[in-house]
Amino acid sequence: MYLCKKFCTLSLVLFAFTLSFAEDGMWTFDNPPRKTLKEKYNFEPTQEWLDHVRLSSVRFNDGGSGSFISANGLVMTNHHVALGQLQKVSTSGKDYVNDGFFAKTLAEELKCPDLELNMLVGMENVTDKVTSAIKSTMTEKEALDARRAASAAITKESMEKTGLRSDIVPLYQGSEYWLYTYKKYTDVRLVMAPEQQIAFFGGDPDNFTFPRYDLDMAFFRVYENDAPVKSKNFLKWKSAGAEDGELVFVSGHPGSTNRLQTLAQTEYQRDFSYPYRIKSMKRRVELLRRYSKLGPEQERRALVQIFGIENSLKAMGGEYEGLLDAKLMDQKKREEKEMREKVAANPEWNAMYASAWDSIGAAINRSKAQFSLVSNRGLSGRLASMAVQLVEFASEMKKPNGERTREFQDANLQSLKFRLFSPAPVYSDLEELQLADRFAEAIEAIGAKDPFVVTVLGRKTPEGAAKDLVSGTMIGDPKFRQELFKGGDTAIAACTDPMIVLARKIVPMMKELREWNEKNVTGTIDNNSGKIGKARFAVYGKSLYPDATFTLRLSYGTVKGYAMNGTKAPSRTTLYGLYDRAYGFGNKGDFALPKRFIENVGKLNLSTPFNFVSTCDIIGGNSGSPVVNKAGECVGLIFDGNIESLPGRFLYSEDKNRAVAVNTGAMIECMRKLYDSNGLANEIEGITLSPDLKPADDAVKPVKETLKPVKEMKKKK
Amino acid sequence: MYLCKKFCTLSLVLFAFTLSFAEDGMWTFDNPPRKTLKEKYNFEPTQEWLDHVRLSSVRFNDGGSGSFISANGLVMTNHHVALGQLQKVSTSGKDYVNDGFFAKTLAEELKCPDLELNMLVGMENVTDKVTSAIKSTMTEKEALDARRAASAAITKESMEKTGLRSDIVPLYQGSEYWLYTYKKYTDVRLVMAPEQQIAFFGGDPDNFTFPRYDLDMAFFRVYENDAPVKSKNFLKWKSAGAEDGELVFVSGHPGSTNRLQTLAQTEYQRDFSYPYRIKSMKRRVELLRRYSKLGPEQERRALVQIFGIENSLKAMGGEYEGLLDAKLMDQKKREEKEMREKVAANPEWNAMYASAWDSIGAAINRSKAQFSLVSNRGLSGRLASMAVQLVEFASEMKKPNGERTREFQDANLQSLKFRLFSPAPVYSDLEELQLADRFAEAIEAIGAKDPFVVTVLGRKTPEGAAKDLVSGTMIGDPKFRQELFKGGDTAIAACTDPMIVLARKIVPMMKELREWNEKNVTGTIDNNSGKIGKARFAVYGKSLYPDATFTLRLSYGTVKGYAMNGTKAPSRTTLYGLYDRAYGFGNKGDFALPKRFIENVGKLNLSTPFNFVSTCDIIGGNSGSPVVNKAGECVGLIFDGNIESLPGRFLYSEDKNRAVAVNTGAMIECMRKLYDSNGLANEIEGITLSPDLKPADDAVKPVKETLKPVKEMKKKK
Repeated sequence: MYLCKKFCTLSLVLFAFTLSFAEDGMWTFDNPPRKTLKEKYNFEPTQEWLDHVRLSSVRFNDGGSGSFISANGLVMTNHHVALGQLQKVSTSGKDYVNDGFFAKTLAEELKCPDLELNMLVGMENVTDKVTSAIKSTMTEKEALDARRAASAAITKESMEKTGLRSDIVPLYQGSEYWLYTYKKYTDVRLVMAPEQQIAFFGGDPDNFTFPRYDLDMAFFRVYENDAPVKSKNFLKWKSAGAEDGELVFVSGHPGSTNRLQTLAQTEYQRDFSYPYRIKSMKRRVELLRRYSKLGPEQERRALVQIFGIENSLKAMGGEYEGLLDAKLMDQKKREEKEMREKVAANPEWNAMYASAWDSIGAAINRSKAQFSLVSNRGLSGRLASMAVQLVEFASEMKKPNGERTREFQDANLQSLKFRLFSPAPVYSDLEELQLADRFAEAIEAIGAKDPFVVTVLGRKTPEGAAKDLVSGTMIGDPKFRQELFKGGDTAIAACTDPMIVLARKIVPMMKELREWNEKNVTGTIDNNSGKIGKARFAVYGKSLYPDATFTLRLSYGTVKGYAMNGTKAPSRTTLYGLYDRAYGFGNKGDFALPKRFIENVGKLNLSTPFNFVSTCDIIGGNSGSPVVNKAGECVGLIFDGNIESLPGRFLYSEDKNRAVAVNTGAMIECMRKLYDSNGLANEIEGITLSPDLKPADDAVKPVKETLKPVKEMKKKK
Repeated sequence: MYLCKKFCTLSLVLFAFTLSFAEDGMWTFDNPPRKTLKEKYNFEPTQEWLDHVRLSSVRFNDGGSGSFISANGLVMTNHHVALGQLQKVSTSGKDYVNDGFFAKTLAEELKCPDLELNMLVGMENVTDKVTSAIKSTMTEKEALDARRAASAAITKESMEKTGLRSDIVPLYQGSEYWLYTYKKYTDVRLVMAPEQQIAFFGGDPDNFTFPRYDLDMAFFRVYENDAPVKSKNFLKWKSAGAEDGELVFVSGHPGSTNRLQTLAQTEYQRDFSYPYRIKSMKRRVELLRRYSKLGPEQERRALVQIFGIENSLKAMGGEYEGLLDAKLMDQKKREEKEMREKVAANPEWNAMYASAWDSIGAAINRSKAQFSLVSNRGLSGRLASMAVQLVEFASEMKKPNGERTREFQDANLQSLKFRLFSPAPVYSDLEELQLADRFAEAIEAIGAKDPFVVTVLGRKTPEGAAKDLVSGTMIGDPKFRQELFKGGDTAIAACTDPMIVLARKIVPMMKELREWNEKNVTGTIDNNSGKIGKARFAVYGKSLYPDATFTLRLSYGTVKGYAMNGTKAPSRTTLYGLYDRAYGFGNKGDFALPKRFIENVGKLNLSTPFNFVSTCDIIGGNSGSPVVNKAGECVGLIFDGNIESLPGRFLYSEDKNRAVAVNTGAMIECMRKLYDSNGLANEIEGITLSPDLKPADDAVKPVKETLKPVKEMKKKK
């Protein structure tokens, strides 16, 4: 599934800034592939079309994408994007993950504790502003600091001026910097989600594969001032979906790609980063599985984390296979060789860019020496993570805005607080297990005498230390966190909470490592990646798209089957296939159908297209993206890629890579025939104003008065 | 699909005698894997069980397997095994391939023109008799001739004594020789075959793959003295099929495997045989496709050949990929190295066997020099093939029985005549095209000055020569062939038919090549393969199975899914999946359903298991084999292997190789609900004597009187 991976370690983050030549790609909305669309598909998107699609798209900040699909703030995304929130609003009595959730009225919609949605409203190229402060006499570290300071100033100014969330986005390997401004929604309420069993039918085995049979959908409603937001910017719905061979678009937030990192960087991923991360994740998921077996409530608590790690493990396994594939690596080698030769052949380019590859190679080599420390000097779990954030916050706030690490800059404090003060429950027993295991892992990796290990454990065992920390801390209480936050440096310094005490000791160590890294690795890579980015523009012109950065992008492609398993996959599956796969596996385990699917099979039109694939270029973070046709209508809901697409992080192949989506018609068919959700289906299809979408009390009365039949509103547009 | 490949060239036939260590395998009925079955499955087949399964199995001599499934001579096989006969009984007005065939009464059953079925009734180890004539002073060619003479004498004697078809079967790389005797059936009538569209649903793309959705079945009835044969040896039917995880058996006729050929032989296949054969077949299928486009009647005529070549091309493509796979080749190297080291370490073995590998290597090298001539000095089409047979027959019959090539030995003359005098139609226009193309191919490969080419063409163009030959010959007339056959050498010598005239010139050239080959290649390989076979017994003991030889074998395995496409395949599909795949491809082309499947979908129980897989070890020739459970009941009908099984010719993998079968329940479900064939279904299920199985006239009256309800008969057993 195309969840944005949130398990990035420092060593991964280093390599986010690369780009690609491939014809297909993940394009920024200021620079869509107009030429290709015109030449290949005879389609010219208007600025109005682009703006409408962009403003109908939202980012789910905990790792996914979504879109507005009604005039009344209804947002569609994947069930697996909603999963974390579903778990957080569940209790041991009400398991919305397992049983699904269905609001019949606005009053029944459930407010999510810490879900932030972002809508991209502004994009401005601020490269000159960011880089003007850099002088040629600066060291690489000084240049990095200068860019950071300039970025902080720009975002702060923007936020103060517009009130919008403001981010600096480095594109094209850091050879361009853009200011992205977002309208931010934090009152988001759950409207409908089916049982996970059907949303994630086929479980981990079917994850990242096609043919597929998943109803991976969930619906939220966005509120402002306690009333549904109203907007013209929503995607009109087309229940007929997309035809085989049709041109379609995906508007969403691909997390990261590494398509044109240097060979040294790619080899580093193959030899260091991936083997370590895969091993570490396997350890974590095994721990969670052991915990899961303690009882049904433990199983419920661990489910979302297990799901997330399994998803990442499968994705990384596929990516790692790509890295181990000699053909892929050979192509990387050829491409780098060709580009370096072209640079070397031009004296001017040679002087400006030729040294960049070797400089990055040298930085990578320096990084290898510290790899184990960077990977292992860290804590685990939500309690420890919040304690570290509180201590860092107190320390960073003493600095001027421009010198703080990004998450503590003024422009980002609001989002930080939203996450930090989340009322979502913390499970102490699980926290304790995870922390103990993290300590044990650190001992294995860097030894019991490492200063970090000594600091953390003292004379205690990993289990003893974890027990004392978790049982002694108050961090689990949101009010306690709020007080510490307000109290700032003084409160933190005086605090005797054991988790805060530990964080006070750990944070300087982490800071030291980070500074070493910026000085010896990141600074060099940033600086030289920017050079390579410029060299690429010089050599190949500017008809390129940047590597993914979890910001809004537009992909295009064709609804199209592909060769697989010695035969071919069709471009779509149908509801018939769902039942085939369920009964093929005896309607058991990952392949068991929810009861309503068995009991009401006779009601369904089984030839309804269910899931479909297109050549659109996507990756983790695109989960929940709408599939849009030339008319700007929603024809599907992205939720995954096929197994062949996994090496797509490094290399896109039009023959093999496919984006997997739920067909719009299947969503409506199931809502109406199985979920008794005609109201929601009517709202989505714009047929009538849903009769069950009634305001619950006076507070939402104004909304009722302004709600008009959706079809009419669309006509006005 | 597991059709027996009939496109073997001389160069392939050389390598038939090898064997394997793998635990699974294709076992002869005299030596089933009792130990494994007992230890792994706690199952001990009785001699009665083995005899019953063996005597319920039949070989389709044109390349497949089948089984008796009723007391009244009803035989089940695959539609694709029946395809050649379906085409031969069709005319331009009645296309039974396209439309299916359904006999409601015995009288409506259609007699096949040249279908011979064999039932294995006797197996005797005659190694001593075959090899006693060989003296240590003989050259390899003399030893070959001596074995041939001894074999001819044994089979002749057996046939005269028993009246049964009698074949010498070399097993274990020629280290054992067995006399197999067969009851032979030549009056075989077509009872039922569905539309090819559903039998071969998914067409060439889905061929050799799973998950699969094919109703690849056909039913014949075996007659003797113009009445259905009656026998207790038929498989009881179990419509519930086999469960996931159940032990099952396949009793059928795997064509050939090359699992333990020497490394030199395997490399020869990779570097010479496969590239040539694949290229040559592609040429032939392209020609047939061009012919096909000339009109619907041409399309019908070419269909069976196209089907066969496409099937072989896909199989060979998969096998060739296996040969190109470094891992597979490495395993071959390791195995050969290990065995040679073990032989070398024992002085006695060293003296007897150690030189065998290098001797075979030297023969292979000699063979390479003649490869192009052996491959290209040949004709093409049925007319030329029959003319060559007639000329060879006349010439060979002048020799004593023991010196003739095998097909002209006394024991085999009956089968030869049955094929040679077949009244099946010959299509002159197609014959002409194929002959012309064969000539053109020969010119390209061995040059216009090659004596074969000069002899064939004279001063004509390939097209001109082919036209004169086909328009001038009478060989297409079965009576003409019968006369020439009766007339023997005198008639052939006097004959002025241009095809016979040409054959008279060609046959000596072919004979010369064959003799060169026997002297320099085959003799050496046979002799030394026998040594390696004995060495293998010495080193690894006798718990082995021989390579496949298109003789009856028993495979065992478990009904079991497998890892594929990044996920897993279930052990079975259902009828739901048929509709999913059809509608996924828009119910078009290879994936279009016959009308009755669309119109009557509501009648079907769609969760009925349709196709299923097991780990049973099979290969081309096994098509049509019954899948049998521990109770000796028929639970399925083998028709294919998965794509991963193709390198199984060289190496079996329990993780990957799967045999694909039609579930018994799906056959009955379709017969009853879609094909209005309750009578046939009743006969098969043994519920009642089918009311529509009425004798058509007096000739079959005795049968009627003895037909008893099948259930009762079974109880008696």
